[in-house]
Amino acid sequence: MNHLLTLEALPASEISMLLDSAEDHLGVGRELPKRKTLDGVVIASLFFENSTRTKISFGLAARRLGAEMLDFSPGNSSTSKGESFIDTAKNIEAMGIDAVVVRHSSAGAPKLLTEHLQPRVQVINAGDGAHEHPTQGLLDIFTIRRKFGRIAGLTVALVGDIAHSRVARSNIHGLVKLGAHVIVCGPTTLVPPAIVTLGVEIAHDLDAVLPRCDVVNLLRVQFERQRTGLFPSVREYAQLFGMNGIRMKHAKPGMWILAPGPINRGVELTPDVADGSHSVILDQVTNGIAVRMAVLAQLCGKETIRNAECGMRNESKN
Amino acid sequence: MNHLLTLEALPASEISMLLDSAEDHLGVGRELPKRKTLDGVVIASLFFENSTRTKISFGLAARRLGAEMLDFSPGNSSTSKGESFIDTAKNIEAMGIDAVVVRHSSAGAPKLLTEHLQPRVQVINAGDGAHEHPTQGLLDIFTIRRKFGRIAGLTVALVGDIAHSRVARSNIHGLVKLGAHVIVCGPTTLVPPAIVTLGVEIAHDLDAVLPRCDVVNLLRVQFERQRTGLFPSVREYAQLFGMNGIRMKHAKPGMWILAPGPINRGVELTPDVADGSHSVILDQVTNGIAVRMAVLAQLCGKETIRNAECGMRNESKN
Amino acid sequence: MNHLLTLEALPASEISMLLDSAEDHLGVGRELPKRKTLDGVVIASLFFENSTRTKISFGLAARRLGAEMLDFSPGNSSTSKGESFIDTAKNIEAMGIDAVVVRHSSAGAPKLLTEHLQPRVQVINAGDGAHEHPTQGLLDIFTIRRKFGRIAGLTVALVGDIAHSRVARSNIHGLVKLGAHVIVCGPTTLVPPAIVTLGVEIAHDLDAVLPRCDVVNLLRVQFERQRTGLFPSVREYAQLFGMNGIRMKHAKPGMWILAPGPINRGVELTPDVADGSHSVILDQVTNGIAVRMAVLAQLCGKETIRNAECGMRNESKN
Repeated sequence: MNHLLTLEALPASEISMLLDSAEDHLGVGRELPKRKTLDGVVIASLFFENSTRTKISFGLAARRLGAEMLDFSPGNSSTSKGESFIDTAKNIEAMGIDAVVVRHSSAGAPKLLTEHLQPRVQVINAGDGAHEHPTQGLLDIFTIRRKFGRIAGLTVALVGDIAHSRVARSNIHGLVKLGAHVIVCGPTTLVPPAIVTLGVEIAHDLDAVLPRCDVVNLLRVQFERQRTGLFPSVREYAQLFGMNGIRMKHAKPGMWILAPGPINRGVELTPDVADGSHSVILDQVTNGIAVRMAVLAQLCGKETIRNAECGMRNESKN
Repeated sequence: MNHLLTLEALPASEISMLLDSAEDHLGVGRELPKRKTLDGVVIASLFFENSTRTKISFGLAARRLGAEMLDFSPGNSSTSKGESFIDTAKNIEAMGIDAVVVRHSSAGAPKLLTEHLQPRVQVINAGDGAHEHPTQGLLDIFTIRRKFGRIAGLTVALVGDIAHSRVARSNIHGLVKLGAHVIVCGPTTLVPPAIVTLGVEIAHDLDAVLPRCDVVNLLRVQFERQRTGLFPSVREYAQLFGMNGIRMKHAKPGMWILAPGPINRGVELTPDVADGSHSVILDQVTNGIAVRMAVLAQLCGKETIRNAECGMRNESKN
Repeated sequence: MNHLLTLEALPASEISMLLDSAEDHLGVGRELPKRKTLDGVVIASLFFENSTRTKISFGLAARRLGAEMLDFSPGNSSTSKGESFIDTAKNIEAMGIDAVVVRHSSAGAPKLLTEHLQPRVQVINAGDGAHEHPTQGLLDIFTIRRKFGRIAGLTVALVGDIAHSRVARSNIHGLVKLGAHVIVCGPTTLVPPAIVTLGVEIAHDLDAVLPRCDVVNLLRVQFERQRTGLFPSVREYAQLFGMNGIRMKHAKPGMWILAPGPINRGVELTPDVADGSHSVILDQVTNGIAVRMAVLAQLCGKETIRNAECGMRNESKN
């Protein structure tokens, strides 16, 4: 496996392999210095959009594997002095860094990096525009798989601003590949009809589809979108698409609520739902570290290389 | 011991135990990687008010014990996206963090965390509003004890804005418990009369009480308070409550000057006093790390648990 | 060796020794945890001017030697609360820090630190006003030496704003000492005539001197200088002093292009030159870490002390 840019390009077998690996890493949470799989590896974070939480989740994952993460994110950095995105990346490469975790407002920015950096530098997409956010997709799917023991055959609703959500896109690609039925549900202005080509069902009435759902993943409302005029008022959104106690009564028994934080209490979901027994929101946070450990170990680990070497040695014996 | 929220709630015996422990840690300053008491422990700093210095002091203390400290302080973080204080803390908890060092402008914020987090997550108050700043109190008391070999029987003056000072409050609670006589001295507008209930003497004339003092702790002038109209001009403050060479001549022989930095030279004290032979301001900085090592080791260490386990094992043998 | 403030004050023999040491460190790039020369050493970065890149280069160098680097740079820190530069430094010292890497807009600020700190605290100048930037000078010279195997006898042009460049000044001192012929080339407004006293040749016509140059080091254009009226327009600068494909044709065969980043593409040099076969810009980045490892190991290492101790022991045997 080389780079992690999208779940769209990742075969189902590799997604499953990463989820299995995340399962292995889940137990080693607090025993930080034990697993030195990535001892000596240095990873750069390069976030052109702020996200303390995702950065720290990657940072904790790196440290638990023995790697170090250094923050090259602009703000104070040379990018504010007018240096190009590629020049910044090539500098990181020249410093001997092994991997770059990049977030950028432009879709395709992480892929662009892979075209300019040496193949030894692994690129991990931590969110590019409205395109993909593959580790968020993986951690959502991992969280669902841990609850049901499988993905195939489940019905999962993604609720909210589908049009602008990279989280939705990564979820769709991963879930559909693993055999889930995916419903995207939101205001007509925020659900592009062409999304059916990804193999999903479109809905605009949450109450109508809710009784069929095994999982509801409540996308974060980004208030800055409201200025576009495409977004309803917060009150209207909460009434139509927010999860609350009344709506929960019409849910399928055993339905789980996901929400990629930070949540807006009273908007995507009411506090009683967020803190209720059907919510796995904090499991997602815990699982996010295990999933990122799996990704980093897979991309930056020398295990594959070593195995290949062993294989060659065995072959030469024959 | 569980959490460190206040010195008010800490029994004298536990304060003394922490000071003894700090004494042990004082010597291991530069031998950073030797003591791995907290190997694998991850501590979050969550500062809603800026303080590079306190954050770094905790960070150095953590590293000298083998622990790691990650900064979750807002600014760039999700709290600026409207996430609640408690949700931020619960996310930190879900990431498997062992302790949170929190500074907040609201008194009681650290206590609120303890009510929402699992008991395994230790909360350390690094300053909450005008309430307490227990590690600053401990390091001030530790610095005094190192100079006199004791606290009981000493007379300690706290000088300045008593009303708004969390440092004053933590000093008072700790010093009074250990048997010191505490004088609070400042402008009438800045010394609440009710503070006598904490067992202190109130004074408004520094020169009148100075000859009785073994220690003078000069609280930092916070210029933003001046807008309130309660604060005298800087010049007037320096004349009435600032320590200077002339005033030093009326001091008790062997009196020590403390000041929780960063100091305003020419305001709380003149440069000759700050840099003079009676100043222990830089000792406070050095001692701060030892005190914070003691606190972190006590709260996050597994020694107590291991001892308890040994105890149980021994009991079962009987 | 004690402190690294300037290349002006560093004897040629010590410069060569550092370059030889950098050669040793160059190979150990990715094998981060192997060399524990500085295990337990803590280094403070104190940048009063922003530079993510230089800070990270020092940080990587520190970690590759087993040391840790903590950022004390203001912005959030006590310096913004009005604390003096020296008080900040004395606090860092009191925390038991072993070395301070300082950048400041005032020439002489690092030297001032050495006068106020204990001799055990090493001060490394990471750029002071228009004075010096010795590690940048060293890494430029190291990059040249790696290409030619020597410095003596080479002709090196420094191109651009000589008057305000600390990089130029450190390059001049180091290169001249090691026997290079240095040409400074820029607009008359930006080349102080008195600079000939440093042993350099002054030129204002790049095309006239280019055929003689073994190396051209293109100083970064700092757009904020344009306000001064001393600086030509960007277009005019690029035409007269920028390196481009046409100009390269008149260069001496085997000439190398250096540029201390971040580069302004289309200003100091065109993209074809920056990315061309004569550019060693990214080598400079890689070499920068090796050079800084050499500096840190030399200043903070205990090898010298140990050697001295061995020497004493041997002497006592005699």
